[in-house]
Amino acid sequence: MTGSTFGKNLRVATFGESHGPGLGCVVDGLPAGLKLSEEILQKDLDRRRPGASPFATARKEGDRCEILSGLTADGFTNGAPLAVLIRNSGHRSSDYAPTAELFRPGHADWTYFTKYGVPPQPGGGRASGRETAARVAAGAAARALLALDGVAVRAGVSMAAGVKALASDYAFSETDPLRFLDPGRSAEAQEAVRALMAKGDSAGSVVELEASGVPAGWGEPVFGKLEALLGGAYFSIGAVRAVEFGEGIRLAGLRGSEANDPIGPWGPEGPLHGGITGGISTGRPVTARLWVRPTPSVGVPQLTVDLDGNPAMIEIKGRHDPCIGPRLAPVAEAMTLLVLADMRLECSKRIPEGA
Amino acid sequence: MTGSTFGKNLRVATFGESHGPGLGCVVDGLPAGLKLSEEILQKDLDRRRPGASPFATARKEGDRCEILSGLTADGFTNGAPLAVLIRNSGHRSSDYAPTAELFRPGHADWTYFTKYGVPPQPGGGRASGRETAARVAAGAAARALLALDGVAVRAGVSMAAGVKALASDYAFSETDPLRFLDPGRSAEAQEAVRALMAKGDSAGSVVELEASGVPAGWGEPVFGKLEALLGGAYFSIGAVRAVEFGEGIRLAGLRGSEANDPIGPWGPEGPLHGGITGGISTGRPVTARLWVRPTPSVGVPQLTVDLDGNPAMIEIKGRHDPCIGPRLAPVAEAMTLLVLADMRLECSKRIPEGA
Amino acid sequence: MTGSTFGKNLRVATFGESHGPGLGCVVDGLPAGLKLSEEILQKDLDRRRPGASPFATARKEGDRCEILSGLTADGFTNGAPLAVLIRNSGHRSSDYAPTAELFRPGHADWTYFTKYGVPPQPGGGRASGRETAARVAAGAAARALLALDGVAVRAGVSMAAGVKALASDYAFSETDPLRFLDPGRSAEAQEAVRALMAKGDSAGSVVELEASGVPAGWGEPVFGKLEALLGGAYFSIGAVRAVEFGEGIRLAGLRGSEANDPIGPWGPEGPLHGGITGGISTGRPVTARLWVRPTPSVGVPQLTVDLDGNPAMIEIKGRHDPCIGPRLAPVAEAMTLLVLADMRLECSKRIPEGA
Amino acid sequence: MTGSTFGKNLRVATFGESHGPGLGCVVDGLPAGLKLSEEILQKDLDRRRPGASPFATARKEGDRCEILSGLTADGFTNGAPLAVLIRNSGHRSSDYAPTAELFRPGHADWTYFTKYGVPPQPGGGRASGRETAARVAAGAAARALLALDGVAVRAGVSMAAGVKALASDYAFSETDPLRFLDPGRSAEAQEAVRALMAKGDSAGSVVELEASGVPAGWGEPVFGKLEALLGGAYFSIGAVRAVEFGEGIRLAGLRGSEANDPIGPWGPEGPLHGGITGGISTGRPVTARLWVRPTPSVGVPQLTVDLDGNPAMIEIKGRHDPCIGPRLAPVAEAMTLLVLADMRLECSKRIPEGA
Repeated sequence: MTGSTFGKNLRVATFGESHGPGLGCVVDGLPAGLKLSEEILQKDLDRRRPGASPFATARKEGDRCEILSGLTADGFTNGAPLAVLIRNSGHRSSDYAPTAELFRPGHADWTYFTKYGVPPQPGGGRASGRETAARVAAGAAARALLALDGVAVRAGVSMAAGVKALASDYAFSETDPLRFLDPGRSAEAQEAVRALMAKGDSAGSVVELEASGVPAGWGEPVFGKLEALLGGAYFSIGAVRAVEFGEGIRLAGLRGSEANDPIGPWGPEGPLHGGITGGISTGRPVTARLWVRPTPSVGVPQLTVDLDGNPAMIEIKGRHDPCIGPRLAPVAEAMTLLVLADMRLECSKRIPEGA
Repeated sequence: MTGSTFGKNLRVATFGESHGPGLGCVVDGLPAGLKLSEEILQKDLDRRRPGASPFATARKEGDRCEILSGLTADGFTNGAPLAVLIRNSGHRSSDYAPTAELFRPGHADWTYFTKYGVPPQPGGGRASGRETAARVAAGAAARALLALDGVAVRAGVSMAAGVKALASDYAFSETDPLRFLDPGRSAEAQEAVRALMAKGDSAGSVVELEASGVPAGWGEPVFGKLEALLGGAYFSIGAVRAVEFGEGIRLAGLRGSEANDPIGPWGPEGPLHGGITGGISTGRPVTARLWVRPTPSVGVPQLTVDLDGNPAMIEIKGRHDPCIGPRLAPVAEAMTLLVLADMRLECSKRIPEGA
Repeated sequence: MTGSTFGKNLRVATFGESHGPGLGCVVDGLPAGLKLSEEILQKDLDRRRPGASPFATARKEGDRCEILSGLTADGFTNGAPLAVLIRNSGHRSSDYAPTAELFRPGHADWTYFTKYGVPPQPGGGRASGRETAARVAAGAAARALLALDGVAVRAGVSMAAGVKALASDYAFSETDPLRFLDPGRSAEAQEAVRALMAKGDSAGSVVELEASGVPAGWGEPVFGKLEALLGGAYFSIGAVRAVEFGEGIRLAGLRGSEANDPIGPWGPEGPLHGGITGGISTGRPVTARLWVRPTPSVGVPQLTVDLDGNPAMIEIKGRHDPCIGPRLAPVAEAMTLLVLADMRLECSKRIPEGA
Repeated sequence: MTGSTFGKNLRVATFGESHGPGLGCVVDGLPAGLKLSEEILQKDLDRRRPGASPFATARKEGDRCEILSGLTADGFTNGAPLAVLIRNSGHRSSDYAPTAELFRPGHADWTYFTKYGVPPQPGGGRASGRETAARVAAGAAARALLALDGVAVRAGVSMAAGVKALASDYAFSETDPLRFLDPGRSAEAQEAVRALMAKGDSAGSVVELEASGVPAGWGEPVFGKLEALLGGAYFSIGAVRAVEFGEGIRLAGLRGSEANDPIGPWGPEGPLHGGITGGISTGRPVTARLWVRPTPSVGVPQLTVDLDGNPAMIEIKGRHDPCIGPRLAPVAEAMTLLVLADMRLECSKRIPEGA
């Protein structure tokens, strides 16, 4: 995890800014013989795509992907890097123009300028949420690889605008405009988000995810713990401000006698630890929650400074997601898939007796 | 972050099991000319050492470190790897013997056995909390490096056994047996932990930390975000089950108009985002909280299985920390220091104009 | 150096097959503020391009590059990954068709099939020499970075078809159809290559290179030695079968009293060790030689097997370079530039006294 | 390969200076269940040990290793890092004292001083050939792992003081004081080295090596080529100035029709390419040659400068190997073993049909 490069066995490099020619990824390390196509990647890209819901920005990004390399003529990976390109289109740069001279609060504008000396780029440049499309494309390839072993990853929204889900219905979430996990409370959550939208404001959220089918034994002691790799991956998603595995936060308030998952013949059985013990998967579903800040672009006046450091007021216009959670969920899936695929590509750490 | 190897510019490899000859670390990448000594490392090691408080295990581990390489005769780093060895001593293996045939719930025993085929090792082997001594030694070297630039890292306990600190007094915490951050509530927290101890039970906790003096500009876009590297590092600490930067959890419940730190002439000014925006430090203190599970070794009967998978009851004896937080705090500091030192060793990413 | 991923501070991922949609690279880690353009990259790409000389394959590959990301509107790097795409065009797949069922001797066909289960791909797929265009594009960016510090890298052919250069005239080499380093012997070398061409045969060669302006102090003890990083990079170029630094081969035949470069006020002065001592640059030009096998595609019958392992005779048709050296020289430059740029981006390993 | 850290799946960190407390290595990534012991490591260490032959320095270094971690009580790897410590002893620092104020030609003194600001350390510090003992210890563990699959690596001296071996008898070499590969010419080679020794001079050499039992399919396209990884590893050995795979140098002088290994039912059959095609092993023995400079410490007056840059004459005393080759051979084996073990730990890159 350095700059825009990620992974050990499955190495992903992403590139691209929101308003340049395009963005994409190079995925190096996929084994040969995996069925892949632009359609397969597109399916995941469409789940992240803006314009698909009233709660996502109305921009029509299209997000059509092109596979540039890595496939045989009959559509299987050939052992060489998979490169994917998504051209940019459909942006109206006029929406972004007025703020170019001011740093937007909550955005990367100021820190990027400080680090790189580059003034705010239209749409956020590399810091745009659009960057995550490249991760989703890479994650879709990882998904195809993991599916061979029955590993599946799903994410949905378990809280939005203060409304909490009391159920975790991932199938429902897939059809819900807010990707909410609770069929019974989605209407309420939508209403709460809509009320903020109406005021030009935005809503925070929590994204919950589950990886099923992960065999026991993924992850390594000390620095290579499964939650260390997943946790780092989750915090690489822009708006994520806290991460919890299993019932991690609740655990801190329990006493020890309440806080262990009992061990049965197939290992630790409960859900408290999110399917990970000692940094290694137990064979039970791996679960996590990501706390997501509200969209920083809000239509209310905010204090900031211009490029010369002079105080100024800024009022962000343009089309923005009122709640990041629904579109972040597929990105959280992608990062989970990339970490798990990396582990799927690790060789066995156990020499059979008598070898 | 793979296995027991960590870092890019400052590369740390740790080794050692709780009941073998010893443990330690190799720190590769320290610049030459840094004043270091066994005394300097020992100071941090003593802060993590057991036996130093009624709330830490009564084991006398000693934890005397020996520097094996990396220094000149006059005590400065020479540009070569710093290797540190801490011999094991003072363990009574009889304490550990009875459970060797049963998997301890909440411990890595079962997953290690599943992954490596190795039955539970005395004291937890590589999964022992004692492993973190090596991190603390490495972190102490990183601390010396960062001190040159005025970067300091402190951690303390902000919740124990359900008692929450309402103040963040790091100086007080340093003298408190529970390393509690609130002078006014430490007695209450101690009592709560003691009550659990008396029942053979243990307490969860929250560790809070602050890195001051971090200049603006550390961290990189996308996967190399500062909170991605720190977050991964925190989750590599055994008992950490959730991580939050700044007011991350609270942020998810706010509306966007409340959730941005306003930008002044020296950048984002508030504490909401823990001194990080867009994955890059702002120059304000970097803050985080770690949710720590209760010690899994408790003196109450628990369901488990033996090496053949037969159900069994286990009751853990031996001397254990009733609350992990106080001894985890120096480890959290160490991981913070290692990540920050790595960034301190990154070259500037900005070509001066006119170069 | 793993798969198609290279570098620590400057991370390069390349992708692409000879007959797919295109090839390219992602270069992650370039500092912001570096002037770059498609024209700058194209200049180096044109030096590697086929069709430019009678001694290069007559294929017209074009090799027009497109920068997909990483630049500001006014043409400076922005700190984000530079992505470059070179579309494929101009190949006549009919030339390649007849051999698709047979493994070509000296090519990667058999080992790729064995490793990946993928039958020979048209034009060699990922193993095509065309893959190196992506390296040259990345190397051109590294060249621009290094030029800021006065580091320059040049390579030419010092032997072809058994004819040895007795001079090292890099300026001449740049204009020579064989990129030969000796103006006085180029005609002879060309004739020797032409004679082999006429028989459908090919010629081996030696490529010599020099990096000037490298400051003293690049490279690290033990595994990060400058010649270790450069040597590994050179051997990653398909046809390179031996690598020598300075007068390395001759040195092995000398006695110790003849084999040291004397040390003057500015360090080791002679050329024997190629500007590297103890794995670290001395400030003198870094020099190396690469031994390059003859083009494996020759128009004479050779023994091989088909996909089922049955013996067969193969006779390679199609347009091929009669001598790899002239087109390999820019690739050798590129790999040198990428290694050196990586070191340029390493921070100082020396703390100033009194810091 | 950065600093003192090496490897991807099998990560090795070495540490230690010639005149400090000791040196050693941490080997991270060994699978569990491998039989190892200090005796097994010692066997390889003794082959590198000085004092074992008239052609090696008369210093008695002992080189007794201690395993600090990574083994179960019954002597099998446990999946955790193997740490090995070799204490220094038996050095007479008086031998080294006189030269401490002068840079020794051919040594790393000047470049280390320039890079790190540290004056020459006794015995060369980190740049001492003694550093390689740590690699040999790590390599011995890799040897044990590879032996499970029938992979064996051997190295010997094929040229010394200008006398070339005409045979490659590795069994003989193991018993020869010069580790020479040709029983018929060893006496002549010994005499030639002895003649140089008598004059206080030293001899260059060539080390040849062979890895047998390497299955087809190790190595990866582009940057991860087997010869790229091996070549980089060989150039990380101090005195190696040129590296050749198979008949690499001779190949550059051949025509294409002579330069391909023909392909039989089990792949490329000849020895020309050293068992590697397209960067991937063919299943035939992997062979390489390393050109080794003469020992730089010679007892003749040489030009140098002192720490202030003033010209001076230096005459090296002390006990030194008259020819580096015999002791470098086990180090070359170790680096080969570490690279190959890393590849042994790579998962299959081919998804079975129908998966």
